[in-house]
Amino acid sequence: MARGAGYWELDAGRARVAAPIAVKGRPMRNPIYDVLFEPVQIGPVTAPNRFYQVPHCTGMGYRYPQSEAAHRGVKAAGGWGVVSTQETEIHETSDLTPSNEARLWDDRDIPALRLMTDAVHEYGSLAAIQLAHNGLHSANRYSRRIPLAPSAVVVDSDDPVNARAMDKSDIASFRRWHVDAARRGKAAGFDIIYVYAGHDMTLLQHFLLQRHNHRTDEYGGSMQNRLRLFREVIADTRDAVGDTCAIAVRFAVEELLGAEGIRHDVEAREVIEALAEEPDLWDVNMSNWSNDSQTSRFAKEGYQEPYTEFVKSVTTKPVVGVGRYTSPDTMVRLIKQGKLDMIGAARPSIADPYLPKKISEGRLEEIRECIGCNICVSGDNTSVPFRCTQNPTAGEEWRRDWHPEIITAPKKTKPYLIIGGGPAGLEAARTLVKAGNDVIIAEASSQWGGRVTVESQLPGLAEWARVRDWRMWQLQQVQNAEMYLDSSLSADDILEYGIANVAIATGSHWRNDGAGRAHRRPLPFLQSDLVMSPDDAMHGGLKQDSGTGPIVIFDDDRFYLGSVLAEMAATTGRAVVFVTPSPIVAPWSTFTLEQHRIQNRLIALDVEIVPNTLLADMDGTQLSLACAYSGKTRQIDCGTFIPVTSRLPNDRLWTDLNARRTDWQDAGLERVTRIGDCYAPGLIAAAVYAGHKYAREAIGGGDTVLREDMNGNV
Amino acid sequence: MARGAGYWELDAGRARVAAPIAVKGRPMRNPIYDVLFEPVQIGPVTAPNRFYQVPHCTGMGYRYPQSEAAHRGVKAAGGWGVVSTQETEIHETSDLTPSNEARLWDDRDIPALRLMTDAVHEYGSLAAIQLAHNGLHSANRYSRRIPLAPSAVVVDSDDPVNARAMDKSDIASFRRWHVDAARRGKAAGFDIIYVYAGHDMTLLQHFLLQRHNHRTDEYGGSMQNRLRLFREVIADTRDAVGDTCAIAVRFAVEELLGAEGIRHDVEAREVIEALAEEPDLWDVNMSNWSNDSQTSRFAKEGYQEPYTEFVKSVTTKPVVGVGRYTSPDTMVRLIKQGKLDMIGAARPSIADPYLPKKISEGRLEEIRECIGCNICVSGDNTSVPFRCTQNPTAGEEWRRDWHPEIITAPKKTKPYLIIGGGPAGLEAARTLVKAGNDVIIAEASSQWGGRVTVESQLPGLAEWARVRDWRMWQLQQVQNAEMYLDSSLSADDILEYGIANVAIATGSHWRNDGAGRAHRRPLPFLQSDLVMSPDDAMHGGLKQDSGTGPIVIFDDDRFYLGSVLAEMAATTGRAVVFVTPSPIVAPWSTFTLEQHRIQNRLIALDVEIVPNTLLADMDGTQLSLACAYSGKTRQIDCGTFIPVTSRLPNDRLWTDLNARRTDWQDAGLERVTRIGDCYAPGLIAAAVYAGHKYAREAIGGGDTVLREDMNGNV
Repeated sequence: MARGAGYWELDAGRARVAAPIAVKGRPMRNPIYDVLFEPVQIGPVTAPNRFYQVPHCTGMGYRYPQSEAAHRGVKAAGGWGVVSTQETEIHETSDLTPSNEARLWDDRDIPALRLMTDAVHEYGSLAAIQLAHNGLHSANRYSRRIPLAPSAVVVDSDDPVNARAMDKSDIASFRRWHVDAARRGKAAGFDIIYVYAGHDMTLLQHFLLQRHNHRTDEYGGSMQNRLRLFREVIADTRDAVGDTCAIAVRFAVEELLGAEGIRHDVEAREVIEALAEEPDLWDVNMSNWSNDSQTSRFAKEGYQEPYTEFVKSVTTKPVVGVGRYTSPDTMVRLIKQGKLDMIGAARPSIADPYLPKKISEGRLEEIRECIGCNICVSGDNTSVPFRCTQNPTAGEEWRRDWHPEIITAPKKTKPYLIIGGGPAGLEAARTLVKAGNDVIIAEASSQWGGRVTVESQLPGLAEWARVRDWRMWQLQQVQNAEMYLDSSLSADDILEYGIANVAIATGSHWRNDGAGRAHRRPLPFLQSDLVMSPDDAMHGGLKQDSGTGPIVIFDDDRFYLGSVLAEMAATTGRAVVFVTPSPIVAPWSTFTLEQHRIQNRLIALDVEIVPNTLLADMDGTQLSLACAYSGKTRQIDCGTFIPVTSRLPNDRLWTDLNARRTDWQDAGLERVTRIGDCYAPGLIAAAVYAGHKYAREAIGGGDTVLREDMNGNV
Repeated sequence: MARGAGYWELDAGRARVAAPIAVKGRPMRNPIYDVLFEPVQIGPVTAPNRFYQVPHCTGMGYRYPQSEAAHRGVKAAGGWGVVSTQETEIHETSDLTPSNEARLWDDRDIPALRLMTDAVHEYGSLAAIQLAHNGLHSANRYSRRIPLAPSAVVVDSDDPVNARAMDKSDIASFRRWHVDAARRGKAAGFDIIYVYAGHDMTLLQHFLLQRHNHRTDEYGGSMQNRLRLFREVIADTRDAVGDTCAIAVRFAVEELLGAEGIRHDVEAREVIEALAEEPDLWDVNMSNWSNDSQTSRFAKEGYQEPYTEFVKSVTTKPVVGVGRYTSPDTMVRLIKQGKLDMIGAARPSIADPYLPKKISEGRLEEIRECIGCNICVSGDNTSVPFRCTQNPTAGEEWRRDWHPEIITAPKKTKPYLIIGGGPAGLEAARTLVKAGNDVIIAEASSQWGGRVTVESQLPGLAEWARVRDWRMWQLQQVQNAEMYLDSSLSADDILEYGIANVAIATGSHWRNDGAGRAHRRPLPFLQSDLVMSPDDAMHGGLKQDSGTGPIVIFDDDRFYLGSVLAEMAATTGRAVVFVTPSPIVAPWSTFTLEQHRIQNRLIALDVEIVPNTLLADMDGTQLSLACAYSGKTRQIDCGTFIPVTSRLPNDRLWTDLNARRTDWQDAGLERVTRIGDCYAPGLIAAAVYAGHKYAREAIGGGDTVLREDMNGNV
């Protein structure tokens, strides 16, 4: 095996002003970052520093309160000075079932939330609760109550449900519910109580918006009227709990809808001017959620700055803002330039709950930066506990007792040979070496990172390389990891080495036969001379292709890759046709909040989109397409055909080794395990998780998995 | 007020061979139905009669076990001889989260299921459990386990997850899990244990299907190989629990996929011939779910008969089949003709849990027939406890203590004036009179039923009239209901009558200004001379329209009505264009399993479908459309424009009465309440529910609502 040279590549898109002071020996903080660790007074409470985990969903909430509390507690342990809940339904007329938000319908919900405040207070951080009434955004599927809104309108999901216009007694009820919830929040131990008008998801914002508020009374018409309820609820909340709790306002300052919505320099300014000193803190962001939580494919760190930077000029109260900030230097700049008082974060705090602590201790290179993929968001959007591509312990803190930084009672076992240096292999290796084990990693190709390296070179996905880079840096720091590139191993090789623990992490490859969801079996009519597999396309095939006719991408994968390849294909200057059995491009990207932007981008690139369509035949350069509904066929020209349908494991090595199982004992092999895509192709997040799980189980523990999904028998 | 003549109209589509023996006085059973009440031996257990509630989902399951148990218990009380669970996940590799199915991952799940068997046994019925491993149908979002399948394939949802090919040890594990689950089922008290291969949703069916099973070992290839695992699991289950439990098989005999799937007369026959005497009972149906649970819009009672009638000729074991049977005479015919041994039902048992008891007691006209709308299915598909259009107590048996037939401690209160004879008004009235109260119903129009009557005259919706007919029949039988047609009442009238309790159930009307989900405010450019409201269209406007250009339907309602009007429009011979902001026609009908059929029907009728599209302008007969993604506009011809967007309450009477609130006391009015669409437009199911809830609350009780959604603090 040849020791690979230059085996970790810098992420070109990532640059820091300050290098870490001390990589080896005792690290210490560069004084430039001291400003981030100043306490901040927020009304009657004091945050220990400027790191503020803004409210964000987890897919756990009231259904998985132990998991929720453990996840939030780890953030406090990692140095986030304020740790918030997700949106918390204050009444059964705001029922987001089956979403797993927080819930505070009545006193029975207090104990679950108390779990979280206890976890956060254990580390001296403040706990914040985002009270929410979701107005016309909630269909109330479980409670069956009629939704409430400023005016009688249909709800904003496709549910066949209408909200009714609130009369004065409804407004009084809502104000009372909010006060009740604030008192319950205080009783549950929260230090900061939110009044929430954001994301086009809450009643208070619905009152602010002309498109939702068609009232003619003192709560409608002028902006001063439309913000009346907002003002009243802030005052109510202060009167109820303001003696000991800070009152935070979360307010969306920009909707990107022009005059149809709230503009930061017009309506938002008017609102903040009117209410400037009413709350104890302003937490400002963009709306709707897809604008607030933009992925790295569409926006870079700091993308909200142009919209939120004005706020501090209008209020003397502390201002929190977000923008997927992971760079300590950017954070310092924001404070020094007077653009923010506290650095808000949702995704960066999930990817690295210890981000503040690492800055504090001068361990900058250890920060596990968010890659902006929104896999976390997809968890909430699919109503399950979320996961994180970078942080495989997210959502598993309680269930599996996985800590993001600490391995309790690490156990040294026999050595490990990990075959494959992609996300699963690298994560397994870095976790094993952290626990004191000896690891050899052999990668067949000439670069580390596997699919992460390949995909991060595709349009828009550069930040994904952080998955590789963070792990490579970790492995570089230790003596107990040997790493080899250009080292393809056979079953013979492995038996010859005789390393006790073998993990096969050889990844997967794309099928080129059309088999996937819509066509469950290979399509016999596909002609190999026109077919280019997605792997070939990614490895330069698209750029080198000498074909002339249209490039036809058949996307039955339904997440990101088909659309990314279409973007790449469009740069060739050839016509591009995007055929999919789905009614929209990349339907699963709805859950990562990207779908609208993806389809828009393809339209802008003149990609022809052919939805609801199957493959029927191929004859020369004629591709026959069939309507997924009627079966009616039509022909199109096809110069190059790229089927993005499904993947198969690279399990040849596993099969070979398995065939020689009787030789294992003599050779010294004790355990051979497939991990990641070569076991079952999936998300990069799933590969990282698989690598982590392998390591955790190898070093002991991890067998007992707690459940809290059984109606209470935790 | 003029007493309406002929105020209940027969549902023309509904005919019975036998009239009830005695409507007044003591009813008795016509001996023709005796055959339905014969006991049936099923292996070691005996069903008390031939009424068999086959496994069906409820949206409750493991998350709402008290609700689940109460719902099933009511079926047993109503005479269903066998009452089944829904599909029950047997292992964490079969994790359908966030769906609320039953769960039996380990012993901790037994107590929740014991609640159900106790409830069922209380009435002498048998309890059945449908064990399920969902194979490539489950994405395992919560457990994060890799799904299992005969071959390495992508899962059948859009989740970015692949199943792996089971090796021999996986097959052994699966067999062991199934045995473990069977033993747990027995321990939970079940009498019948299912082996389930249906709905394109279970591992055992995946093995049977060539499109999913690409194996080359003894579990793949020939049908005899593909059914090997099915046979083994049936035998395993018998060995494990067959001494005291019956072994039922649920098997899909027809997929409507031709040679791509299972055909009843080819593959299904071969399977049943091979396994004919292996189980104690055959429960046979169509697959997938949309074929099994077809709505009345697309299929009539008995639609599965041609596919399942062969089964009895192949096995001596009892055979259960389904087909939305609500006619006792059809049921008798099926038994007498030897087509079925037991009458299976899911939806009819939800609409009327007391269907068997009513037949048994000669109360045929009291049967509340399923209308085949699949609102029940939409509950499960949206992961919430289901509801039923006909039976407003469904899903509320435990939470609100609502029994479908019995009002505990009915209370006579002051009289009621119900204004409006639609679904809300009729349900409120029939519930109040059942509790002994005096009710006057005044309907402004010349027919009863409100929107139900109007909509049941639209293409495909005739059976919906049962909502009206059943209630009208109930009201006809009593002396304490006065009913008046052609009786439009003003606020003055109501104050003059001075009836203490007034319920306003005046329904809703469709907006004609374009406001809805996509356009939140009225569109100023719509020209009244081209616009026809959906109400006008339904009331004959479409047939009488003298316009010539294309009929353009703009559907932002997103459920059924837009497509039904398009069907109606197509009969005019004019061109029909269906414009919608959604990517598909009637997206919410995905949850009622109708979407594919609806879009297909419109395509067959040559309706031009224009998805992802908003309205931009109207100029003369030119309608300007805008791409929902890019905003790019284009013009189309428009002769008649029907905006199906959203509805507004008919709340004029409420407003007028409210303006004279100071007069109420003198007039004798004590309580004025809006119910149904005039409070907030919604489903017919929601209107019936609102009417029922109004009545229940009026006669006492109903305030306390139990919750079991708080992680166990029931």
